[in-house]
Amino acid sequence: MKRDSRTDVRREPQNIYDNPQFFAGYRTLRETDSGLNGAVEIPALRALLPNLADKVILDLGCGFGEFARFARQAGAAAVTAVDISRSMLDEAIRQTCDAGIIYERVALEDYIPPARSFDVAVSSLALHYISDLAPVIRRIYAALKPGGQFVFSVEHPIATANPQGWVCNDSGQQLYWPLDRYQAEGLRETFWFVDGVRKYHRTVATYVNSLLAAGFRLEHLAEPGPTAEALLRRPALEVERRRPPFLVLVAVRPGTG
Amino acid sequence: MKRDSRTDVRREPQNIYDNPQFFAGYRTLRETDSGLNGAVEIPALRALLPNLADKVILDLGCGFGEFARFARQAGAAAVTAVDISRSMLDEAIRQTCDAGIIYERVALEDYIPPARSFDVAVSSLALHYISDLAPVIRRIYAALKPGGQFVFSVEHPIATANPQGWVCNDSGQQLYWPLDRYQAEGLRETFWFVDGVRKYHRTVATYVNSLLAAGFRLEHLAEPGPTAEALLRRPALEVERRRPPFLVLVAVRPGTG
Repeated sequence: MKRDSRTDVRREPQNIYDNPQFFAGYRTLRETDSGLNGAVEIPALRALLPNLADKVILDLGCGFGEFARFARQAGAAAVTAVDISRSMLDEAIRQTCDAGIIYERVALEDYIPPARSFDVAVSSLALHYISDLAPVIRRIYAALKPGGQFVFSVEHPIATANPQGWVCNDSGQQLYWPLDRYQAEGLRETFWFVDGVRKYHRTVATYVNSLLAAGFRLEHLAEPGPTAEALLRRPALEVERRRPPFLVLVAVRPGTG
Repeated sequence: MKRDSRTDVRREPQNIYDNPQFFAGYRTLRETDSGLNGAVEIPALRALLPNLADKVILDLGCGFGEFARFARQAGAAAVTAVDISRSMLDEAIRQTCDAGIIYERVALEDYIPPARSFDVAVSSLALHYISDLAPVIRRIYAALKPGGQFVFSVEHPIATANPQGWVCNDSGQQLYWPLDRYQAEGLRETFWFVDGVRKYHRTVATYVNSLLAAGFRLEHLAEPGPTAEALLRRPALEVERRRPPFLVLVAVRPGTG
C-alpha cells in the first residue's frame, strides 16, 4: 500500500543549507522575519520551555545559533549546538562571543550525544529533514538526565503530507489547504528557494508514538497559530489559523536527576 | 479572533439519534456496514484495548450496544453502557440477553459515574458531539481505578474542522480534502441524514492536552486508515488513506489499583 517506495532507500543526510542559492534565500527570509518562524514557531516553542537558568542544553539543528544565544541570555549553564551546515555554523560562530556555547558540525542522524548529560534538548524545525526518526529520538532520550525535557517543533504533518500550498481562486484568495497522502509517510521533494529540498512526512501519530516508544512521557502537544501581536503586524497571517503550520511536542524522560 | 461565537452558548445535550429520519438512515448504514465504522474505527479501537477478561467496563455513548456485548464475549466482568438515545438503547436492550450489561439513559455531559469503579472506559465516536470536553474527561478520570485505561475514538479534527467533504473534479474523482478553520474550535452544524447535526470541532492539541490536564498519561495516539482486509473488500476505501478519518487515544490513570 506504500505509495512512495523511495522512502525505503537509505539516504545520505541532507545538507541543503550549504547550497549557496538556498542559503541566500533562507538568510533573507530570516533576516527580514518574513517567514513563519518569528510569528508562530519561535514564540510557541519558547513558551513551552522550562526555566533555562543553570541548565545544560542540547540544541539539535541550531542553524544561526539564535536559540543557543537566547538560552545563554536566559541563564543556561552551557549549550551544545549541533548542525550539519557549515554556512550556518560559520554565521552562528560569527554572531557568538560566548565560551558557554559549543558548536558541533555533524548530521543529526550521525550525532551521538553523551549519555545523561543534558537537562533540556531542543530542536527547532529540523526533524522533518530526518529520514529515520526513531534512532534519533532514542539517542536524545539517552542524552537527557532523568527528569530532563525534550521540546521540539516540526512542520505540521498536515503541511508536509501534500506540500503543494493553498488552493486559490482566480483572484489569488486562499480557498483551503489541500490535504492529501496523509498516511503515505516518507520523502517529499519540494521547491523551497531551490528544487529538490528533501523533507520527510510523518503523521502526528508517528511523532507522538516515537516519543512514547523511546520511553518519554508526553507533557504537551501544541499546534500553534500566529500570535496576536504578529497578526496585528501582519494581518495576512490570519490564513495560518485555517491550517496548523507547526507541531510542537514537549516530552520528559521520567525519573529524577 | 474566535470565528464562531455560537460556541459560547450553553447548549442542551444533543439527541439526534432519536430523530426518526436520522435513526433510520444511521441504522441502515450500520446494518449494511457501508460506513467507516467496520472498516476503520472498530478494528482500530479494539486493537488498542487491553485484555478485557474480568474487567469492569464503562462504555460512554454505547449506541446499539455492540461494544458492550463484545466486551462481555471477551470476558469482561460487567459493563455499564451509557447513551442519551432512547431509540438506540431500546435496540441495544432488544439485542442483549445479559445481566452483566447495565444500560443507562443519560447525556454524557450529565453523567456522573461512580468514583474509582472501572478498569477500562471506552467511548466510540461520541465525544465530538460534546460541547464541553474537559469536565467529561475529568469525570472519566475520577471513575477509573488507578492504573485504569481510557480508550476513545473521535472523528479526526482534520475531518471536523471543515466538514464539507472531498473536493472532486467534474468526473467525481476526489482531488483532496479541503482543510480549513482548523484553529476555530466549536460548533459545526452538518447534514448527516438530516440537517442540523451538531458536532464540535476541536484540535488534536485540545484532545491530547485535555487528557494530560486531567491527570492522564498518554499511552498511544492512532490515526487509523482502512484495514488491509477492508481495502480488499471495498477498494474505494483507499481514499481514506489520503486523510485521517479518525483519531484514537489511549490514556491511563497513573497508579496501581
